[in-house]
Amino acid sequence: MKQFSDLSEFLDQAWSLLTRGVVDAKFASRNPTFSTISEEGFPTMRTVVLRRADRMSNCLEIHTDLKTNKVFSLKKSNFAGLHFWIPKAKFQIRASVIVDILTGSEVEADWSRIPMQSRMSYGSVPRPGAEIKGPFDYKKIPQQDCFAILRCNIKELDLLYLGDIHQRAVYKIGEPLVSVWVAP
Amino acid sequence: MKQFSDLSEFLDQAWSLLTRGVVDAKFASRNPTFSTISEEGFPTMRTVVLRRADRMSNCLEIHTDLKTNKVFSLKKSNFAGLHFWIPKAKFQIRASVIVDILTGSEVEADWSRIPMQSRMSYGSVPRPGAEIKGPFDYKKIPQQDCFAILRCNIKELDLLYLGDIHQRAVYKIGEPLVSVWVAP
Repeated sequence: MKQFSDLSEFLDQAWSLLTRGVVDAKFASRNPTFSTISEEGFPTMRTVVLRRADRMSNCLEIHTDLKTNKVFSLKKSNFAGLHFWIPKAKFQIRASVIVDILTGSEVEADWSRIPMQSRMSYGSVPRPGAEIKGPFDYKKIPQQDCFAILRCNIKELDLLYLGDIHQRAVYKIGEPLVSVWVAP
Repeated sequence: MKQFSDLSEFLDQAWSLLTRGVVDAKFASRNPTFSTISEEGFPTMRTVVLRRADRMSNCLEIHTDLKTNKVFSLKKSNFAGLHFWIPKAKFQIRASVIVDILTGSEVEADWSRIPMQSRMSYGSVPRPGAEIKGPFDYKKIPQQDCFAILRCNIKELDLLYLGDIHQRAVYKIGEPLVSVWVAP
């Protein structure tokens, strides 16, 4: 029966699962749900691809088209959330994050590493979310200046393990790190 | 090659997938992500179980312990979101919802249908999210007065189909229903 005996071992497990998602396209943590707050005040979500997980800087990164509604929402409020559910590990990771939108020269190196085929995701006429007459009245035209990295700076992690006995802990990221077990 | 030729067929597909999640515990739409806005202003998410999907009243239901943070959040702002990603159908469903919290006599019939084993999810000492000293310093004690139904009244649906050609549409729920194709 798997159990986590201390808070640092529990946190290690979370980072191990996050890191695996970056390198293993088939692993569940590859595809978290990203939530922002819409102009109307609704929390809105979408499935995204985890591109980077850096424990040293407590930062997670995803890529986006700069003209999507989620970027407009982030420009109004850059408080966001990432949610991971990894069934095989029975592990849920929730991150409260403050997002920096990186563009232009800051993302050139990343853009150069994106395969041609995948660049279709960045650049659309009309912009994603714009009303169109028929369902296919749009074109995907790769455009480097539509490519952005959303750098998600973690402020809090809420971890839940649904093993035989459930375990849950909250980590407030800062100097020092404050971590506590909480009732699941 | 599957395609949706009109907006009502596209919406039919979404409701068909939602309805299946209610009855089929192994189907992906059984476990949407539910997002609320925390006291600190972060959109916070958790995996939940879809208990009811009613197209006539445009309403989705989930169950919760009344003492969870999501309920506290909903009492401050009842604007919430539900997100479904159904890999087999290549279909994403996003619902912007306004939530009613049902308790007491309103939920008696539902409570009576919950198997004894499952009632453990409603009632915890201390309450879910409360700080505890050791990871196992809590007890699950089924309590009918901790059981609540979150009735999620749909205000908007945003549907995305990632077939060979991507399709996306937005439905504003009201009289009349307003629906448009949008660029994916």
